[in-house]
Parts: sequence; C-alpha cells; structure tokens
Amino acid sequence: MSDVKTGSAAAGSSSLDALLRPRSVVVVGASSDPSKRGYQVIPALRETGFRGDIHLVNPRGGEILGIPVTPTIEALPSGVDLALVCRPAPTVPGIIEECAARSVRGAVVLATGFREAGEDGATLEGRLREVIQRTGVRVVGPNTSGILNTRVGLNLIGARAVRPGSVALLLQSGNVALALMTEITERTSAGISVCVGVGNEVDVGFHEVLDWLGRDPDTSVVLMYADGFREPRALLETASRVTCRKPVVLLGAGRTREGATAARSHTGALAGAHEVLAAGLAQAGVTEVRRADELMPVGLALATQTAAEGGGVAILSDGGGYGVVAADALIEGGTRLAELGEATRARLRGILGARAAVGNPVDVGGPADADPTVFVRVAETLAADPEVGAILVIGLFGGYHIRFDPALEEAECSAARGMAEAMRRAGKGIVVHSMYALRRTSPLRTLEGEGVPVIASLDAACTATSALVRRASGRATWPPPVAVEPSGRLDEADVAAAVRRTRATAASGSSALTEPEARRLLATFGVPLGEAELCASAEEAVAAAERFGGPVAVKVVARGVLHKTEVGGVALDVRGGNAVRQAFEAMRARTPGLEGVLVSPMLPEPVAQVLVGARRDPGLGPVFTLGAGGVAVEILRDVVHRVLPVGPGEVRSMVGALKTSPLLLGHRGAPAVDLCALEAAAAGVARCMTQVDVVTEVEVNPLFLYPDGARAVDARVLLGGDS
Amino acid sequence: MSDVKTGSAAAGSSSLDALLRPRSVVVVGASSDPSKRGYQVIPALRETGFRGDIHLVNPRGGEILGIPVTPTIEALPSGVDLALVCRPAPTVPGIIEECAARSVRGAVVLATGFREAGEDGATLEGRLREVIQRTGVRVVGPNTSGILNTRVGLNLIGARAVRPGSVALLLQSGNVALALMTEITERTSAGISVCVGVGNEVDVGFHEVLDWLGRDPDTSVVLMYADGFREPRALLETASRVTCRKPVVLLGAGRTREGATAARSHTGALAGAHEVLAAGLAQAGVTEVRRADELMPVGLALATQTAAEGGGVAILSDGGGYGVVAADALIEGGTRLAELGEATRARLRGILGARAAVGNPVDVGGPADADPTVFVRVAETLAADPEVGAILVIGLFGGYHIRFDPALEEAECSAARGMAEAMRRAGKGIVVHSMYALRRTSPLRTLEGEGVPVIASLDAACTATSALVRRASGRATWPPPVAVEPSGRLDEADVAAAVRRTRATAASGSSALTEPEARRLLATFGVPLGEAELCASAEEAVAAAERFGGPVAVKVVARGVLHKTEVGGVALDVRGGNAVRQAFEAMRARTPGLEGVLVSPMLPEPVAQVLVGARRDPGLGPVFTLGAGGVAVEILRDVVHRVLPVGPGEVRSMVGALKTSPLLLGHRGAPAVDLCALEAAAAGVARCMTQVDVVTEVEVNPLFLYPDGARAVDARVLLGGDS
Repeated sequence: MSDVKTGSAAAGSSSLDALLRPRSVVVVGASSDPSKRGYQVIPALRETGFRGDIHLVNPRGGEILGIPVTPTIEALPSGVDLALVCRPAPTVPGIIEECAARSVRGAVVLATGFREAGEDGATLEGRLREVIQRTGVRVVGPNTSGILNTRVGLNLIGARAVRPGSVALLLQSGNVALALMTEITERTSAGISVCVGVGNEVDVGFHEVLDWLGRDPDTSVVLMYADGFREPRALLETASRVTCRKPVVLLGAGRTREGATAARSHTGALAGAHEVLAAGLAQAGVTEVRRADELMPVGLALATQTAAEGGGVAILSDGGGYGVVAADALIEGGTRLAELGEATRARLRGILGARAAVGNPVDVGGPADADPTVFVRVAETLAADPEVGAILVIGLFGGYHIRFDPALEEAECSAARGMAEAMRRAGKGIVVHSMYALRRTSPLRTLEGEGVPVIASLDAACTATSALVRRASGRATWPPPVAVEPSGRLDEADVAAAVRRTRATAASGSSALTEPEARRLLATFGVPLGEAELCASAEEAVAAAERFGGPVAVKVVARGVLHKTEVGGVALDVRGGNAVRQAFEAMRARTPGLEGVLVSPMLPEPVAQVLVGARRDPGLGPVFTLGAGGVAVEILRDVVHRVLPVGPGEVRSMVGALKTSPLLLGHRGAPAVDLCALEAAAAGVARCMTQVDVVTEVEVNPLFLYPDGARAVDARVLLGGDS
Repeated sequence: MSDVKTGSAAAGSSSLDALLRPRSVVVVGASSDPSKRGYQVIPALRETGFRGDIHLVNPRGGEILGIPVTPTIEALPSGVDLALVCRPAPTVPGIIEECAARSVRGAVVLATGFREAGEDGATLEGRLREVIQRTGVRVVGPNTSGILNTRVGLNLIGARAVRPGSVALLLQSGNVALALMTEITERTSAGISVCVGVGNEVDVGFHEVLDWLGRDPDTSVVLMYADGFREPRALLETASRVTCRKPVVLLGAGRTREGATAARSHTGALAGAHEVLAAGLAQAGVTEVRRADELMPVGLALATQTAAEGGGVAILSDGGGYGVVAADALIEGGTRLAELGEATRARLRGILGARAAVGNPVDVGGPADADPTVFVRVAETLAADPEVGAILVIGLFGGYHIRFDPALEEAECSAARGMAEAMRRAGKGIVVHSMYALRRTSPLRTLEGEGVPVIASLDAACTATSALVRRASGRATWPPPVAVEPSGRLDEADVAAAVRRTRATAASGSSALTEPEARRLLATFGVPLGEAELCASAEEAVAAAERFGGPVAVKVVARGVLHKTEVGGVALDVRGGNAVRQAFEAMRARTPGLEGVLVSPMLPEPVAQVLVGARRDPGLGPVFTLGAGGVAVEILRDVVHRVLPVGPGEVRSMVGALKTSPLLLGHRGAPAVDLCALEAAAAGVARCMTQVDVVTEVEVNPLFLYPDGARAVDARVLLGGDS
C-alpha cells in the first residue's frame, strides 16, 4: 500500500501568499450583470478597500464599473498574483492553462460540477489536477465559496460588511462561512482576518491553509468546519504545530451514517470513522465542538482567555437556577468545579453576608443588585484561590442598569474592567454569560473591549469554559517526542529477521500470517504470548497436549483461514488424548490446505480481557485501538483510538478513557490488572505496526489480563501487497 | 411509610383563580423608595394595565403615586383577592394571619430566609405553614420572584416590557424567569400569558399551578424550570392530564451531584435521582430539555406545530455544510430522517435540476438563490410524501434579499406564506432555522405570523424538530388504562393469603423477608422461580441435593442476613453429599439465628441475565426498574426505570431502551430470550409492589433468561413498618 502523504504542509505554504495575500487580482469571467459573481466581486473589492490592481477578463471587452475589460487572459500583463475564475466547470482546465502562460500565480475556482457531481465531474477534476501539476498554478477550489482577507481588503467571497479582526475561518462550506461571519460581525466585537473555503481541494489542501494561518500574524484563532478530510494525517501534523501557538477549533460533521452520506453529496469527500479522526485531532491539540452554535463562542473564549493549568471552574451567579444549570452542564461536559478553600469561603461570606451560598456556584444575587462592584471583589477572591483555573460569570451582568436602576450603568462598566483586570493579573480565565448579551450593553462592550468573551447562551458559555480548562492542561501530545516502547530490550537481529520473514510472506502473495507466524512476529516485539505448539499430525497434537497437562485449546492452522471459529477451527477446553485426536481429525477433514493445528494450554480465567489492535488507516496512517473485551462491551463499542506513534503514558490514558475501565482498575474488591504488562503488549503491537511496513493490521483479541502479567490468547496479522 | 400525596391537584385548582387572575391586589409593605419592590410594583401594575383595585398598606400611611396608603391590614376593605407581601421573613406568618382576618384570599410572599436558609428558616416556614393550614389563605412562595398574568395586567414580578401572548412560565428560579421573558420578548413574536415563580412551595405547589395552566384558555404551552420537585407523583398525575391538551416542556436541572448540591442551597428541595424522575416525566408526556437555550425554541415549536405521526424529518437546506450538521444532530438526537420516495425525488429533480442533491437533506442552494419560491414548491413536494412527518428548513431563508438582491424581499415573504400554508394543509410540522433570525427580517416575521417557529441556532432547531416528531408519536402513556398483568390467572385466595402473611412478618418487626419467604411471595404473583428447598439440617440438605441430582447452590437462610455473599452464605456448584454437608456446617458455624439453608439445583447458563426490581420512591411512589446483568453492565449502569403502574407493552419498550438490548434480542446468531417470560416476571414484581403495601423494595437479581422461559436465581424483598 502507498505511504500516507506527509510533510508537504510546511514546504508549500509560502506559495500560498499570492493566493491569500495577493497584490493583484484578475476576474476571469467578469460580468456587467449585477446578479453574477463576476460583477459582485468588483464592488466588494472596492468596499473592503483592496489596494492592488484589479483586472477584468471577458471576450466582450468594454468596461465594467469604470475598469477596462481585457478580452483574453493572453492580453493580461504578466505575473498577476491571483485569478478569480467565475466560469463554468468545463472551461476551467483551459483557463488555468492560459493563466499559467501569463504567469498568474494562483487561482480561486468557484464552479461546481466537479468530483461532487458524479463521474463526469470527477474526470474533469482529474484533467484540472493534471494541468495544475504541470503548470504549478496554485488553485483553491473548485466548488468553493471563495476567499477573503480583510488585512489586504481581499473579498472574493461575496460577503457584505465583514468586520476585520483576528478570527480566521477555514471551511468546506459556503453557508457555514457566511453564517459565522454574520454571527461574529453582528453578535460580538470580534472580526475576521481570513476566510477560506477550500472546496474540493483539488490542489491547495486544508492543512496547507491551516499551516499558513498558523503563521499569519493577523490571526489569533482558527475556526474550522469540515465533514471529511482528504489528507487527515497531514492535517494532524500541521495542527499539532499550529495549536502550540494558537487555538484551533473544529466543527466536525459527518459523524453519523446519514451525515456522512449528506457530506459525500456535498464535497465528495469520504467521511472516515469520525471517532478515530476525533481522537487524532485531540492528540493534535484541536478543540472539537459538535454544535454549530458553539464554534464561535468556544473560539472566542480560547482566542482571548487562558485558564490556569490544573484548576477547576468557579461559577459566579446572581440567582440560584442558572447556577444549577451551569453546574450540571460543566460536570456533564467533563469539567471539574473548583473546590473553594475555607479561606476563600470565609472571605466570600465577608463580602456577601453570612447566609450567602459560597460553595460553588457562588451566588452574589441580592448584594450585587444595588452594587455591581461586588462582582469585582468576588472575582478577586476567586482568582486568589489556587483551586480556581477560570471563572464563569452567569446571569444578569451587563443589565443591572436595565433591571434595577439606570444609575448603575457606570458602576457596571467599572465592574467589567475590574473583573477583567483581576483575572488577567491572576493569569486565570474568565467567560461571561449574560442574558443581555444580544443587546450588547455598554458594560458588556466594556468586557469585550477587555478581551472577555460575552456569550448569550448559558450552555455555550459552559462549553467555552470547559474548552478553556481543557486547553490549559492538554495541548498537543502528538507526535510524542519518544514513542512508548516494549518493556525490556528487543533483540534487533530478531526484529530484522522477523521483518524480512514477514516481507517475504507478503511478497509471496499472502494477505495474512497464520496464527503461529503471527505469534512469532508479535513475540519478537515483546507481546506476551502463551505457550503453543504447531502440530502437523494427530500424534504430535496428543503429545503436545500431554506435555502441557490439563485441558488445551486446539486451533486450525491453514493459510487463508482467517476466521477460525467460523469454519469450526477452534476447539476449547479439550481434555484427554482421544479428544485431542478427534479435534485434529475433524479439522483436517474440514480444512483443505491444513498445515497443522496449534495446541496451547487453556489459560486461567483472567481478571479482565481487552482487545489490542492497530491498523493502517488510508488517511490517518497507523492507528492504535484499545477495546474492552466481552460480548456486552462489544455491543457498547467500548473502544478508544489513538493515531500512532503514542508516547509513554498514553496507553494508561486510553485505559482511563474506557467506559469499563473500573474492570481493569480493581472493581469491587477485585484485583487490578497489571497495567505495565498491558502497556508492554500495546507497545509491541504499535511497534510491530510502525516497523513492519507490509503489516496492515494487527489484532490481539483477547489479551487476558492478570494481576501479574498478560497473555495474548489469539493474534491476527494482515498483510498488504505493495511494498 | 406514609402514602404518596396524590389527587389533590384538581380539587384545589379553582382556588388559584384569586391568586393568578385577581380582581384586586393589596401591596403589604408598600414603599415610597423607588429601589424597593413595594414601590416598583405600583408603576408596573399601571404599565401592564391592571384594572382592578390596588390597595397599599404601610404603617406610615400617606399616599404613594397618588394611591392612599392604609396604615394596617385590619383597615383594608374585606375580601381583597391577592396580597403581595413585601415584608421580611419573620413578619410573614403574622401578616398572613391578619390577611385571613380581612378575608384576603391569596398571597404572594417574596421574602427569603425560610427553609432555603437553614434551620431557623425551616422553623419559621413551619409556622407559616401552620397559619396557612388554619386560615385557608392560598400562598405562593416564599422565596419567589413573584407572579405575572398579562391577560389581567397583573405584574408582581418586576419584569419590564413583557409582551402578552400564550406562553406560560412555571419556575423555581427568578433569574431563569427573567431570562426567558427577555428572550421571548426580544427574539420572537411570541409573548407571555402567565409567569409563576413557585419558590419554596409552602402551600401552592408546582402541580397545582400546572393544573391551572392546563385549563387556562390563554395558555398554549407551559415552559417549566425545576431543580427538584416537592411532590413529584402529583406532578406526574397532573402533567399526564395537561400534556394531552397542550405541550409541557421542562428544563430539569440538578441532574449531577454538583448540580443537586447547588439546588439544595437554592430552593432547599431534595433533588431526587434525576433519571427516575426523567423516566416518569416522559411517561407523563412532558418534553424534557437539558439545555437552557433550548427551552424556548422547543416550547415555541411544540406550541405552534404538529408533526404527522410516524413520519421522519426532511431537511431542506440551501448549501451543503449545514445539511450535514443537521443530519448529524437529528440522528444523534434519536430522530429518523425521512426516506424520500422515488416519486418525491423525481419531482424534486424536476424543480431543482437533474444534478441536485435530492436525498435527505434536500439542497435547494443555487436554484433558490434567485427565486425563493423554489422553497414553496419543494415544501409542497415534501409535504406530499407520506414518509415525511415534518420539515426543517435551514440556512439563509429570510435573508435572500440581504444576501443576493433586495428585490427578493417580497418573493421571500410570499414563499414564507406558501411554505406555512403547504405544511398546514398537509397537517405536517415545519421549523425554520435562519442565520438571519436575530435580525427578524420581514420574511421571518411573516413566518412567525403564520405560526412557524424561526430559530437562530441550527442545533436548537434540530432539537425542536426532534421534539415535534417525538410528541407526534408519543403522548402520555401514564397512568395506563390497564396495567401489565402476570401471565396466567393469579389465584386470588393465594394472593390474599400472601398479603396477610407478609403484613404479619412486617408487623413482627422484620425489615426483610428471608429468601424462602420472598420466593413464596413472588411465586404467588407469577414470578418464575426455580426449585429450591429449605433444609433445617445437614441431612435434609444432603437429601435435597440428591433428589435434585447434579451440582447445587446452598444459601444461608437467617432473618436479618440480607447480603448473603458478604457473610459467606452462598456456596455455588456444590457437588456431592460431603460437600453439601460441609457447606451446611460452615454456614451454621458462621450464622447465629440460622433457620436453615436453601438448596437449589444449579441452573443452566442463560442466554442473558437481567435485574428486575421495584421500590417505593419517597416522592414518586412505586418505581419499576429493569437492568442488564453482568459486571461490565453494572459499571455502565445500564438500567431503565418506569413509574408504576405500566401498561402492557411497556416492559418491551424498556428492553428496547437498554443499551445492551441486543444481548436479549439475539446477538450474532445467539437465540433471543423469551420476552413473554420476562414480561410475566416483571408484571409479577410490579403487581407485588403495588398490591402488598408493606413491601418497600423487590429485587430479582439475576433473572436468568432462556429462549423458552426465565428463572429467578435470587430474590430479595424489603418491608416497611408503618402499615
């Protein structure tokens, strides 16, 4: 199989300057019809103050809005930075060709009718790709809503009245782009730096733009929408670099079968198994949201605020009900509430009165009604508590002067400054929910001016606060500086021999190792395998069983038989020579090409069992999976994924993420399993996958776990041909 | 134990007329200080046009805002409908007493400092309750934000500029009330009929107000917030009546430990196990939401729209991205997308072009840009498909004239009317998400005028559409017309004897039946129990084991030993006379008060095992629980609850709601279990709980399930004293 494409992200990124920060633009397919994009873009560029040259191309010539129209691309001056192609799909490859001849550096192709439209479109897209590869013109699209860069006044997206700012949007959808720009411009004081609709990604990919945005000094946060990535591993690599510098938030859609189906008809991208992708994105430090209405609030909070590492959230509410709702939402979102220290509580009682609720939520209702500065004193007190990582202010703040007394407006503005200052000084985060958020009252605008996010939805404010706390303690963990290693030192000569042997098996056309081969390979990588003997005859099998003593398992060995149980190729708990012989004969009778049987002693009942596996995902590359064993858990799909490589400690974090982790950690007085042994087995599987290039899938299932060790009961290794 | 209070709801409800629709009001604690509620209420009543008499009481006398002030309550005219008590907590019992003397019919008590404030407050609340019971004055509060009825212009809540309408709010929280009124007034064209903050419910309870609102002709939907109910079973009884006539939506908070803790310091209510309550509310037809920002959108959708029963949702989007997000959100919310018929698709292709995405979502992007009437033709086509129960329109609708061409405004308004009309004619629901919702453009106001909910959040629009579809197929199922019955006819004489016997055991002071007693009781109610023999001596035990043949279980029988395993009182798989004798002797040695041992044959391995139980919840009354068995599932808490009684069919619906239901329904070629036998066992447990008043808890765990029958392996029955 072909290697996953990697590493191209950084290299090509400066070539995007001409596209994303152009000094000159040509509209190919300029129009004098105001309902056409080829017309609309001209006033849009003027409105946003684009200062570079604007060229127009249309065979009719003439003049549009005072700009002379060039009849052909050939007639353009050489070296225009960017062409906006407003012409139908079939003409596009030829246009790019002509652009290349005039040294146009980049193009944005709006047309639909390519891959997303079926077979003919895919053929056309192939032709376009060929032209791009040959000419080196960098192309965004096709099937894109366009691009926008407020810094240079570039507006090729048809959006009106977009406020400049530092939020970048990177999307696969024009309507999501438009909605986000509208939302940010109308409901916040933030603004947009760059917006890129990548469309079908025939050339410029999601990860390349992300890389460019990571280095764009005008961008403080990247909000992304995608319903499937063309090069997910390259995206992870890029994201893990970018998220160290600035937050990246993704609305990942196409999670369900129905959503994925809709996504295919949309961008033509094959939606992968979302859970695996989500795991990789988390490893790369990307914050994923699952609601469209939380992308913006979470992005703004991450762009402006930083929680103190390890702290919980303190809720500051002015009334009971919303405090309860917020506590539920944070806890259900997996975020800890800060346990306020006794000194903090005493100080709060000093401010709020002896009977006030000073647990967490802290209720300022009453004392604050006539004196909003109470908010500042409470915020200062909370900021001083080492348990607090961030505070979430909820309720009426910003509307006290509406609710109670117009005279309170100035006090509220001053409280807004005071709260922001207190949290900034303490190096802790603050998020404000206000039921007056949409009115954007002066105290709320003051908060925004101080860089404090003000959010209209209580629930979204909770999600944003959770995201802050999570980012404080968990930045990108991928790729790890060192990968987890099998315990003990592997014999490198053995490993090299095993790799050669496995390659030879693959080269001979086998798509899988037999179980004895798989066991031998995995043992080389330190996976703990129980005793087992390959027996070519009934006599050998009986003798092996006698040597082991006690009941044995007898399993068929034949190249090509992968699912042994389904062909009656597994006999368990076989006792006595006669039974072993019968098992052998029955398997021989049923199995053409039998190489023999594998005889192994029955293992003692484990404390718990797991699945340990790895496979090569076509997009993400090697992916490691830990799953809980047992039939009930199979139904519940209690599995956790990580993109390889993973660092030391990651396997334990995966164990903790299993819903049934208590079974491994000592449930109801049962002993805990040997996590070191599990870790070693996992590392062996991972190392086998990364080191043996012809291996496409490894599955140890079940791995029996004991208080002092682990034993693989069965092992399966699949091979891929093209290496 | 005392019976759950029931049935009081209907009786007392007309007595709420004086409170909720008063003809005269007296403000006790009227004030000339504009920062006090005793002042603010006067201009508020005038602003909202209250036409009844307004009386003021303050010892200082004089005049406030032109109204003469009466120095004492005694000096009031007799028979004022409603007193608003703006005085501090300690004075309240005396004030109610004085009100009663002047035949004041109801009172709203704002003061805090009662139960929610600790022990002294609780004592004071007790005194207040005593006065109320003695005098018959109906009291809302204390610790309430007040009440409002826009129909009669009654505004005792201090909210400004509330638009009259048909949405009723019933809450435990003042800030949630204020937020909802602000949200509805500012973001929709809907308005408020009644708003009641019940506060501590010292007298008038949540369910009484709900009952009144159910009959209030001015109310079309009830939105509730609660973080714990004082009389949950009465609430269910009331809700099951009200939800047949109008939708009831609850934001139920206090779901987590942290939320419940916050709730206690808020209203002093003991938050129950939310999952049990949620199950009961669903049985009663209440729509529960778990986000504060979805209460209003869901309520408006349910108030204005009705989905066709059994249909799925068709998504009508104008661009790809949001369609994918909506598909994910609906599916993850448990709602089916309609599978559009081929005739529908063909018609849609006729409207949208041969290449359009006419699956579901249906993408009108492109064709609709210049012609919004496309929306109407698509809506008509979808409405005609019998698979479609409701449509969800998402994207830019309402802003085409902003996005593309101002001239489209009239066409959009006309399309708004056309879509609403099409769906109304078809008797199907419609919900509209628009990114221009907050601008409330003329097409969107047109939609609202036609009774179509317009929602700014895509995610909330999906939740609202899901709620529509759910309400169409699942109204109140509780209480059922007939309860599920044990299979076969019970011997009523046996039942009567069993009830007498069990009562006698309870009367003798026992808090639990022994296992043989529990088995005998449950067998009477048709629960399938395996053979078992109570043996008083080792000899009897050995003889019993011999009669059964094969391995047996030996279990200790001693009054007071409830957890047999923990005292070494269970020996499984005991083989042979010696082993049985040893087991007996060991148990006798360890167990003072041994009555004997229970010997039973080991049962064959079941296909699956479950827990079947029932208990008397202090608030909800008898509650039935079905849980999946096995240790992994215990960790995952795979349990489903229902408030008893449940109707026939409900046990199967509970099975379907288990996460591990595939284990019962035939997983991977395994046989399905005998659901009739499970149903019969469940019915027996339920009947035992409802019929034997001294039983407080029944647990059959595990119940072994086979393809042709079921067997209880262990049974536990707890008894309560006071009957």
